[in-house]
Amino acid sequence: MVPASTLVSGSVGTVETRYLDLPDPVRLDCGRDLHPVRVAYETYGTLSPRRDNVVLVCHALSGDAHAAGVSTVRPETGTRDGFGAEDRDGASGQALGWWDGMIGPGKAFDTDRFFVVSTNLLGGCRGTTGPSSTDPATGRPYGSDFPVVTVADMVRTQRAFLDVLGIERLAAVAGGSLGGMQALEWAILYPDQVDSIVVIASTPALHPQGMAWNAIARESIMRDPDWQGGHYYGTGRTPDAGMGVARMVGHVTYLSAPALHEKFGRRLQFADDIRYTITEPEFEVESYLRHQADSFVRRFDANTYLTMSRALTYFDLARQYGDGSLTRALDGVAARTLLITFSSDWLYPPSGSEEIDAALRALGKPSELHLIDAPYGHDCFLLEEQRQTPIVRRFLAAG
Amino acid sequence: MVPASTLVSGSVGTVETRYLDLPDPVRLDCGRDLHPVRVAYETYGTLSPRRDNVVLVCHALSGDAHAAGVSTVRPETGTRDGFGAEDRDGASGQALGWWDGMIGPGKAFDTDRFFVVSTNLLGGCRGTTGPSSTDPATGRPYGSDFPVVTVADMVRTQRAFLDVLGIERLAAVAGGSLGGMQALEWAILYPDQVDSIVVIASTPALHPQGMAWNAIARESIMRDPDWQGGHYYGTGRTPDAGMGVARMVGHVTYLSAPALHEKFGRRLQFADDIRYTITEPEFEVESYLRHQADSFVRRFDANTYLTMSRALTYFDLARQYGDGSLTRALDGVAARTLLITFSSDWLYPPSGSEEIDAALRALGKPSELHLIDAPYGHDCFLLEEQRQTPIVRRFLAAG
Repeated sequence: MVPASTLVSGSVGTVETRYLDLPDPVRLDCGRDLHPVRVAYETYGTLSPRRDNVVLVCHALSGDAHAAGVSTVRPETGTRDGFGAEDRDGASGQALGWWDGMIGPGKAFDTDRFFVVSTNLLGGCRGTTGPSSTDPATGRPYGSDFPVVTVADMVRTQRAFLDVLGIERLAAVAGGSLGGMQALEWAILYPDQVDSIVVIASTPALHPQGMAWNAIARESIMRDPDWQGGHYYGTGRTPDAGMGVARMVGHVTYLSAPALHEKFGRRLQFADDIRYTITEPEFEVESYLRHQADSFVRRFDANTYLTMSRALTYFDLARQYGDGSLTRALDGVAARTLLITFSSDWLYPPSGSEEIDAALRALGKPSELHLIDAPYGHDCFLLEEQRQTPIVRRFLAAG
Repeated sequence: MVPASTLVSGSVGTVETRYLDLPDPVRLDCGRDLHPVRVAYETYGTLSPRRDNVVLVCHALSGDAHAAGVSTVRPETGTRDGFGAEDRDGASGQALGWWDGMIGPGKAFDTDRFFVVSTNLLGGCRGTTGPSSTDPATGRPYGSDFPVVTVADMVRTQRAFLDVLGIERLAAVAGGSLGGMQALEWAILYPDQVDSIVVIASTPALHPQGMAWNAIARESIMRDPDWQGGHYYGTGRTPDAGMGVARMVGHVTYLSAPALHEKFGRRLQFADDIRYTITEPEFEVESYLRHQADSFVRRFDANTYLTMSRALTYFDLARQYGDGSLTRALDGVAARTLLITFSSDWLYPPSGSEEIDAALRALGKPSELHLIDAPYGHDCFLLEEQRQTPIVRRFLAAG
């Protein structure tokens, strides 16, 4: 870890993403063995001599290993979903980590106490092996030949990565959205190695409307002729048009209707009146969506989007581990569980966290559920740092 | 009108869409004069000698003139948004009108009493002049040279059409969604000629999230290379890929999350387990969306979709007629107003109708608002016929 900068209060300072090659193939749910697998990661804080202060932080669909601090290597890194996505990129071209508000000295995941580890997920496009990596069988990028991976596959990859670092136990696994799914999966797959999980704005299984939004985003990418069946690398063409639409859909689902109303209303781009155009944005909200799409396609790979979206759609604890029963699926969990959910999150609504809490309680397991009344929808897990911080700090202090 | 068939109880029987060419150009909000303009229409019931029993029924984004009865001419006509879209097409290849449950002998719009008129909207693709019509200036289809039209333009076209039929007054103007917008616009533009309006699942102005969904749908169409800048007619290529995604987005917004949950849950296409595929549907909800997209692109024109979507996004009574005040905009309304809204409609939420009702009441004008508690989202206006019928019948009987 790079020493904390004095420039940013509570910051872990300037950081750099590092890379590690796993020694063994990763066995995947689909039956394939994947090798080689490289993992991009960052760490913040200091590993204790007893190696008992490790917090694994897991990112969501469009995240990466750069969770905290300032990265000067790739200035486009670390923009976040939702409002303020641009705010994290300073004029200097530096980029703050996607959860910088939650990770650092004195923050929710306190780097004065914890050794925080963040990896780019399997299937990613930010340094960890994914569809844009070279397929050893062909010498060319995998493209759509990359295996279809699950959240469990991501977690097994994290497990193998931590093995190399010599870390057996985790004081906590934490994440929002798809990141929360990984925390849950950790608690089930490795019950003896996880002391606690922090599951934010997540669910035991995406509801059908959320599945529909994800399906639409994938369709939009795959219907773009520039997707080329997934083999677009090196062709000079990428499915930016379809990815842009996918991002717009995602973006609206990450926010709430009242948040869009508050931010844009029905304000016109040009104040006086409408200009009778279909091809150009007339309203601020239309212009904003187009901007979000344009900036996203510059930093993200379409096949990784498909991979992540498929994994989070498959994720279903009751189906995977409980023969349809969530309670049965959670029967082996030994970790203490903290659940945080947001009133305006309609993509991962509070009911999902409530189901997990109810199942854990029915099993007599320690679970704590906090519903935060906040207006910004699913993006709250990235934005409501102030209100999450005391909850997370108290939960981790009790560990 | 064709005599009522005895085959279908309460049906107006077999019907045929007719066409009428307007004698004069239509002056549009954008400043252009459009000529020639042909209007596709159907009528049901009998015009009274005093011509005082006319109900104009207005369709929504993807509708057409075939609102009631059985059409044998174009079997693909008249499928409706939402659940049951297919149900209207019998095995015989006949198609029921999109509001057949509401229009007919003894129904909400009772053809034993009223002469019901339904037209395809200006900009449409089902017989009324629209982007796929021939541009007299070039001899080729307008494509994206078709003027950008407003709801007011649609209403002025209906007015001109009714002039030719010799109909001055309307006992009622009725419609859902975009159709409700037309009813409101009628009451403002022609206050002395409208006795009552029936505004269902509509709004005085689409909210920003709804504007966003519409923008995404249009982006999806325009980003499809086969759209070809709007001039795809005669090229052998149509933007089916983008239109399909647009339809999927629309479809999900027409339904409610609980409705999707109830209908599909997380059921897999193949019951046993997942197959690890990104390109093929794995879940029933994914397969359903793809089917909806495929069937829609066969019956609808992309440029008409853009035109309708733009018009309903522009629609804003307070901006158009009230200097930002809805109350001021409605100040001249003389029609009795019936508003029906549905609890689960998140695209055109009850708050929109409540605003209209409050503004009319503040002005001392007769207004009646009914909130129907029903689970199917925006599509309720097409599906909840049984519960709308007594409300509409009583309202019209009081006229």
